[in-house]
Amino acid sequence: MLGLMQDWPLLCHKVIDYAATQFGQSEVVSRSVEGPIHRSTYAEVRERSLKVAQALERDGIGFGDRVGTLAWNTWRHLEAWYGIMGLGAIYHTVNPRLFPEQIVYIINHAEDRVMMTDLTFVPLLEKIQDQVPTIERFVVLTDADHMPETTLRNAVAYESWIGGMDGDFAWKSFDENTAAGMCYTSGTTGNPKGVVYSHRSNVLHAMAVSVPNVLGLSCADNVMPVVPLFHANSWSLAFSTPMAGAKLVLPGPRMDGAAIYELLDQERVTFTAAVPTVWLMLLQYLEETGRELPHLERVAIGGSACPRAMIEKFQNNYGVRVMHAWGMTEMSPIGSCCALKPAYAALDGDARLDIQEKQGFPPFTVEMKITDDAGRRLPWDGKTFGRLKVAGPAVARSYFKGEGGEILDSEGFFDTGDVATIDRLGYMQITDRAKDVIKSGGEWISSIDLENIAVGHPDVAEAAVIGVAHPKWDERPLLIVVVKPGRAPTKQAILDFMEGKIAKWWMPDDVVFVDEIPHTATGKIQKMALREQFRGYRLPSTDAAG
Amino acid sequence: MLGLMQDWPLLCHKVIDYAATQFGQSEVVSRSVEGPIHRSTYAEVRERSLKVAQALERDGIGFGDRVGTLAWNTWRHLEAWYGIMGLGAIYHTVNPRLFPEQIVYIINHAEDRVMMTDLTFVPLLEKIQDQVPTIERFVVLTDADHMPETTLRNAVAYESWIGGMDGDFAWKSFDENTAAGMCYTSGTTGNPKGVVYSHRSNVLHAMAVSVPNVLGLSCADNVMPVVPLFHANSWSLAFSTPMAGAKLVLPGPRMDGAAIYELLDQERVTFTAAVPTVWLMLLQYLEETGRELPHLERVAIGGSACPRAMIEKFQNNYGVRVMHAWGMTEMSPIGSCCALKPAYAALDGDARLDIQEKQGFPPFTVEMKITDDAGRRLPWDGKTFGRLKVAGPAVARSYFKGEGGEILDSEGFFDTGDVATIDRLGYMQITDRAKDVIKSGGEWISSIDLENIAVGHPDVAEAAVIGVAHPKWDERPLLIVVVKPGRAPTKQAILDFMEGKIAKWWMPDDVVFVDEIPHTATGKIQKMALREQFRGYRLPSTDAAG
Ligand SMILES: Nc1ncnc2c1ncn2[C@@H]1O[C@H](COP(=O)(O)O)[C@@H](O)[C@H]1O
Repeated sequence: MLGLMQDWPLLCHKVIDYAATQFGQSEVVSRSVEGPIHRSTYAEVRERSLKVAQALERDGIGFGDRVGTLAWNTWRHLEAWYGIMGLGAIYHTVNPRLFPEQIVYIINHAEDRVMMTDLTFVPLLEKIQDQVPTIERFVVLTDADHMPETTLRNAVAYESWIGGMDGDFAWKSFDENTAAGMCYTSGTTGNPKGVVYSHRSNVLHAMAVSVPNVLGLSCADNVMPVVPLFHANSWSLAFSTPMAGAKLVLPGPRMDGAAIYELLDQERVTFTAAVPTVWLMLLQYLEETGRELPHLERVAIGGSACPRAMIEKFQNNYGVRVMHAWGMTEMSPIGSCCALKPAYAALDGDARLDIQEKQGFPPFTVEMKITDDAGRRLPWDGKTFGRLKVAGPAVARSYFKGEGGEILDSEGFFDTGDVATIDRLGYMQITDRAKDVIKSGGEWISSIDLENIAVGHPDVAEAAVIGVAHPKWDERPLLIVVVKPGRAPTKQAILDFMEGKIAKWWMPDDVVFVDEIPHTATGKIQKMALREQFRGYRLPSTDAAG
Repeated sequence: MLGLMQDWPLLCHKVIDYAATQFGQSEVVSRSVEGPIHRSTYAEVRERSLKVAQALERDGIGFGDRVGTLAWNTWRHLEAWYGIMGLGAIYHTVNPRLFPEQIVYIINHAEDRVMMTDLTFVPLLEKIQDQVPTIERFVVLTDADHMPETTLRNAVAYESWIGGMDGDFAWKSFDENTAAGMCYTSGTTGNPKGVVYSHRSNVLHAMAVSVPNVLGLSCADNVMPVVPLFHANSWSLAFSTPMAGAKLVLPGPRMDGAAIYELLDQERVTFTAAVPTVWLMLLQYLEETGRELPHLERVAIGGSACPRAMIEKFQNNYGVRVMHAWGMTEMSPIGSCCALKPAYAALDGDARLDIQEKQGFPPFTVEMKITDDAGRRLPWDGKTFGRLKVAGPAVARSYFKGEGGEILDSEGFFDTGDVATIDRLGYMQITDRAKDVIKSGGEWISSIDLENIAVGHPDVAEAAVIGVAHPKWDERPLLIVVVKPGRAPTKQAILDFMEGKIAKWWMPDDVVFVDEIPHTATGKIQKMALREQFRGYRLPSTDAAG
């Protein structure tokens, strides 16, 4: 027997409708790519996104078409998203930090028909436009005055383009499982793979992460997503912020400490979110200038593990609560967030930091398990680590065009490729990437644990650990270190520092010093490249064993 | 093109699964019907609700069957809900405050096959059991020791019934639009009509009202739903509380001031919810005993308009924030809640109360409009009032068995039967029930406004206003008053008190004093009965006009 409730599909444009109706005067403040701060409201964003939909339709774009965006976080990019989705077309965010060949690959793979781009990326696109023939038109997110001379096909300035529309347009209506957006994962092996969000998954995910146990967004918040719209679906903030009616602050192209601080301060931001790298820059800026963060209440940090020292600094020096979060493009993207359950709420000092270093527990709608290689569930004891697998309505079931084949296990769970522990209270902690874990004598060693300890050494700027082939143990850990300018620690000094902090058999077999560690476009250490570089590296222990 | 996200249906038992997995040790504390306080956890509730499903299945109950409950808020009632839903059967909460004939009518209409009842209602059911032949078995929510001698068909004590189960049972899986629950509206005209909730609507509604702009429930909360599970779907709290992992405190059969205070205090309740009548009793108890509410942070008040004096007392005397809420059985039930948007947040004193008296703004997923009788939208100016209509995934589209026919307008909105204003910022205020509004010379007069003013008079205990036929004006307001014990105001004294507080033409044409005003089972004034009683009443103005 069916319920007798209304058929009201979860469509993304209902979010901007709600924001415009209930919080029409809430501000959307952006640092524009042209330079000045720009002020708008949800009512205006909605009005203009209707014009985006209208302009796209006039250009022949419709249901199911992909529209690329290569753009910073600004009001225009936000309008573009809602306009595209409200037409039943699909936003495809392209990460400008990818290599040009990768950009070409994913545009072609997605078959984008229009590309909306910031001024910043016009030169890049001019260079590659011949290789991306599906794109019929380039819309430059600027006005006529700032429109550059360009060879881009059919180029038009965004403001002129929507300026020609009367806005007399109604959102399309369709099934909530319709595709809304697309984001390619910056996979470190093989070609990038497209994750396809639906209207339903975007809306449900935003609702699930808005509750107090997770982001806790309200209309009293001023929210600044420093995390780009092109990075893992903006961590939901393009949806959850208007859904909460919170003021939205968009940092545009500048993510340096001074620029971020300026917005945090002037716009009285209460909640912000980004990867650790961004916060390193901000904290450095604060230390240099002696400035403080009186308005900021919470900072969500994820994308890679948040260093303990960062949690400490935010909380102790600036009174900002850190919410360590974990997720991935395939999860829309938030999979967990580290709020303190009552059993942990009274902890302080180191005991509290021990918990906050964990990636936290999943929101309702995300199910988790850890398994061994054979798929058997492992216990939640905070020690046993295994492959982290997840299920939920905002978790991918396959990639675009079937790339990568079947990706769910027999219970319908997606293998995140992460290795994690889960404690008795449900707190998950990433211990490694499955492919980075070091398999020594049948047991697993977490490369991340070793790295975290090594960077605690005062002379170490950055550290990476990889497994190197070993005749007896299969693999043994090699520690690769970038030292701080002017420092010159010995191998032994670093090993001595690690001693006692880990099990004896986890101790790296060797230390090498390098000038630089390679990173991916999203700032993660490229272990693949390191393994390549150190393939055939002979550990002293190998010599000993040999 | 469809999104490529997992098919993860929104099923109610996912809520108790989540609570048991992530907040398994969070407490469920109940005042039992037998007397003592009972302590349980989400993990135990889930385990036992699996046994409920198993026992029902063994008794031949399955997908789509209705299982009635006639019970107070206790852990057993909660287990019953989840067990019933997890089987694909349908909980049907029966309001014990209805007249026995109404109870017979709705049980037969719903065709309940099992009735789960508290000890309290065994005598009632014994009397009517012959009139409700669809019920095959009565499960008494108690243990063997407390099981009474009873003539109830096939009666069994709940604890013995589930005690025979091993719990080796898995929730059924089905479409999220499957019916989960049922609640009849205590309509004042015609027969009660059944509202049928789906798994999807219950889950979405709970998610929508959990955000900080509405109830803002977190795992740090201790939540006490004084509002019964049988009243309008428990205002979502049977779902939203476990979804937040908050401790749940259930008051059982006692809702008097002392009993409610005892739980608020001993269980350190931070959030509670009920109709104004309950809070009148509590406030009186607090005044008499001089006790305070140091733990309580928020109280949601709805079901009927929250008196201004009540908001003031909670906030000023006890430091408890009042969240005035509005909803109805057909809305799952929350339709709006009065949090303060930034534009109102700085108000204090009377200006703040003026806003808090409003029923507030809708959560995301609820759409509202006000229209005139012809269905034309009216402006949101805070003054114009019209019929309040709503849409959303947790709003009814029809009643069980098609009773009442087509209930949505051409835009798919449900007519709430309420008359309201909506202000510039989206705040809705109920001014009347459509059928209670007084139509005087083609204009509308709000009976509720007049009542609210009249009860402000120090001698008035309760007031009701109805329209009485008038030869010239069609209808004119008649004020019906119950005076406080020992007081004896004159008609003129009351009219003088109202003078200047309303437009001249809104002034009641007459005042009558009565000993008692009739109420419905859910505590609302029975205007129907009053109109019946005062049919043909001759107003002085009629004599004048005649
Ligand atoms: N806060 C409120 N203020 C005024 N009336 C209310 C309020 N909450 C609920 N109601 C009334 O109760 C009706 C729903 O009744 P029920 O379905 O029995 O909960 C609504 O249509 C309103 O008329």
